[in-house]
Amino acid sequence: MSHSDVAARSTLQSKRGLSFPDKWFLRQLFKGVGPVPVRLVIEDGTEITPPGISPIATVKFRDRATLAKLAFDPEVAFGDAYADGRIEIQGDLVKVLEAAYRSWPGGGGGEGSRWHQRLMSTWMRWRQDNSQAGSRENIHRHYDLGNDFYKLWLDDRLVYTCAYFPTPGATLEAAQEAKLDYVCRKLRLQPGEKVAEAGCGWGALALHMAQRYGVSVKAFNISREQISYARNQAAARGLRDKVEFIEDDYRNISGGFDVFVSVGMLEHVGLRHYSEFGATIQRAIGSTGRGLIHFIGRSFKGDFSRWIRRRIFPGAYAPTLDEAAAMLEPYRYTISDVENLRPHYARTLEHWLERFENAGTKVADMYSPWFQRAWRLYLAGSIAGFTAGALQLFQVCFAGPDAPLKSWTRSSLYADGKF
Amino acid sequence: MSHSDVAARSTLQSKRGLSFPDKWFLRQLFKGVGPVPVRLVIEDGTEITPPGISPIATVKFRDRATLAKLAFDPEVAFGDAYADGRIEIQGDLVKVLEAAYRSWPGGGGGEGSRWHQRLMSTWMRWRQDNSQAGSRENIHRHYDLGNDFYKLWLDDRLVYTCAYFPTPGATLEAAQEAKLDYVCRKLRLQPGEKVAEAGCGWGALALHMAQRYGVSVKAFNISREQISYARNQAAARGLRDKVEFIEDDYRNISGGFDVFVSVGMLEHVGLRHYSEFGATIQRAIGSTGRGLIHFIGRSFKGDFSRWIRRRIFPGAYAPTLDEAAAMLEPYRYTISDVENLRPHYARTLEHWLERFENAGTKVADMYSPWFQRAWRLYLAGSIAGFTAGALQLFQVCFAGPDAPLKSWTRSSLYADGKF
Repeated sequence: MSHSDVAARSTLQSKRGLSFPDKWFLRQLFKGVGPVPVRLVIEDGTEITPPGISPIATVKFRDRATLAKLAFDPEVAFGDAYADGRIEIQGDLVKVLEAAYRSWPGGGGGEGSRWHQRLMSTWMRWRQDNSQAGSRENIHRHYDLGNDFYKLWLDDRLVYTCAYFPTPGATLEAAQEAKLDYVCRKLRLQPGEKVAEAGCGWGALALHMAQRYGVSVKAFNISREQISYARNQAAARGLRDKVEFIEDDYRNISGGFDVFVSVGMLEHVGLRHYSEFGATIQRAIGSTGRGLIHFIGRSFKGDFSRWIRRRIFPGAYAPTLDEAAAMLEPYRYTISDVENLRPHYARTLEHWLERFENAGTKVADMYSPWFQRAWRLYLAGSIAGFTAGALQLFQVCFAGPDAPLKSWTRSSLYADGKF
Repeated sequence: MSHSDVAARSTLQSKRGLSFPDKWFLRQLFKGVGPVPVRLVIEDGTEITPPGISPIATVKFRDRATLAKLAFDPEVAFGDAYADGRIEIQGDLVKVLEAAYRSWPGGGGGEGSRWHQRLMSTWMRWRQDNSQAGSRENIHRHYDLGNDFYKLWLDDRLVYTCAYFPTPGATLEAAQEAKLDYVCRKLRLQPGEKVAEAGCGWGALALHMAQRYGVSVKAFNISREQISYARNQAAARGLRDKVEFIEDDYRNISGGFDVFVSVGMLEHVGLRHYSEFGATIQRAIGSTGRGLIHFIGRSFKGDFSRWIRRRIFPGAYAPTLDEAAAMLEPYRYTISDVENLRPHYARTLEHWLERFENAGTKVADMYSPWFQRAWRLYLAGSIAGFTAGALQLFQVCFAGPDAPLKSWTRSSLYADGKF
């Protein structure tokens, strides 16, 4: 049943008779998000089930005002109401969000069905600031929340990007190590080569490349907490002569590298700055180098939800493959390999959410109950986005027009059965 | 040394002193194609070597008029003069063409350095006709040249697309069989599934899919000679109930398929018709199917040379990855895997050229010496294009937004060591 069918019905099943305003708000809500198969309960006891749908969960509203807000702007109002505790989900949060992604007229492209939602989304994109100063502020707000917080639910290396699961049952630790190795193998790293890394997180990949593949790395990041942690790790492992962690913007990466790698940073670059990202790659590796970029992407153009951009990832944008590929064209880089690891990110996030929940009230104690609920919603919503296909994860390998051929086929990536 | 350095030099080394017109024409020529490292000899004995370059071959001009034409429009005049026998290459033709690709200011993007070449290239693109009627004419001119001609230099299955060489030393026959299998494996074909093939050549892939993977195939092609040959093959192998060869345009493919595949046809679709190609895919497999397109592409936007478009492949265009990816976006197809097989196409073409040369004067006897030289130039030029990076070969796998996940990793493609 399409959302318009549901919206068109004047009779919504309810234990009590629905008032006229209730009906109107519900019709608006269904227009906005489509026929999500949930039972709606308002605290005064009103209970509504959309007709012809068997509900997978119950959504409880503390009051009618929340329902009204949701009808006008479900994208932001749902997230805020959930984080505030004004909405409670009885049932599987991930499944509810996945159903919402599937029924959403915009398909999770940051666009509702209605003009005011599209307008707000576009306005937000134009306001977003991915300049060097703006990026510092954006990155600070997410990645400098405190390393202890991330230690609660990431793996022991603190890798905060999609893992690679050789089998779905691999542990998160094994899958993150496999991802680091997989990236190195795709890059065909040779001992003694010089690698530039843009956006290095807590340093796991840079340290792994240096330790296991004998390359030297300059790794850039503008998160102060991450760089500080990464430098300590380099010192502790005796890798300070091989890995230099630099607290600076990717745009200040200089030349002289064989290899460029960036895992999970393109999302923070912003579409209007892709030409600067491309120019950075060209400056780093010229026409003879090679590289890999790993990023959250999409199958269709659209923004992250406004709630995610407002509360979790300011300044973020996930490109389509054609938007990312176009960035490499001015320098005639050859794209040699693209792999979509979308199911691996859903699995990674399931591990993170499980650990996050297992931490009990620690997150609420560190920050606030609001923060804990907001981050639960972000992690659950990300699982739903990858599962429903609103989000993709691309690994793109490329080489300069004058780069020597490094491999005749892809088979050597898999030769030892490790991946 | 850049082409402008060479062009700026007023002294070109020559056994005899160069006349003023000779110098002017040569300067124009070097502006157009860059400093290709060859010795130029005009039949009256004038011999010119660009300074500071050690020549890899000798280019002999029958007369000054040919040199003059080349100076004005090297892209077309070279091909025509070579095919006419007014230019002769003493040395390795492929190496000369590869050097030309590398030195060409347009990088083999169908654009010379000069405004009139760009204008002619653009004009030709706008004139090109990829309508259903126009495509019939374009395809007829290339693929209906006679099956006996293609049998002279293709493999025994008549596969006229890039092969897959598990090792560089594999035979052409083995590499074409491997390619057919590789495509089937990437498509994760299951017995009983229904496959639509757009542009099936002489039918090798359709027959292979049906015979080895138990699927049923409807294969479309507008080349009468190819369809007729393919139907005979299906009958001879007892596959007429599994494979239907349909002489019709890809735009007339209907619905109800699980899988869409197209190998080496997108090149003939024309950029302005990509939306029709995308709509055809959507009609064929809906939101639950999957597919693979295999095509000659580019790392930067540009046309095939005007000579190729005029004499060999009317109406052809090789897209960048972003142009191809954009075609799938309106239907939210997920791109799951992209592989660039560029070195494999250079190797395939080397086999074809070798067989073509081994056929001696048979091609000239079938058609004309002009035809033989023109096709030698096309095959040699294609090797050079892939080697120099002017051309790429992309295999793109995709799946509908509601398609079930068919594989967790790519490793099973390589598990038996076959690829």
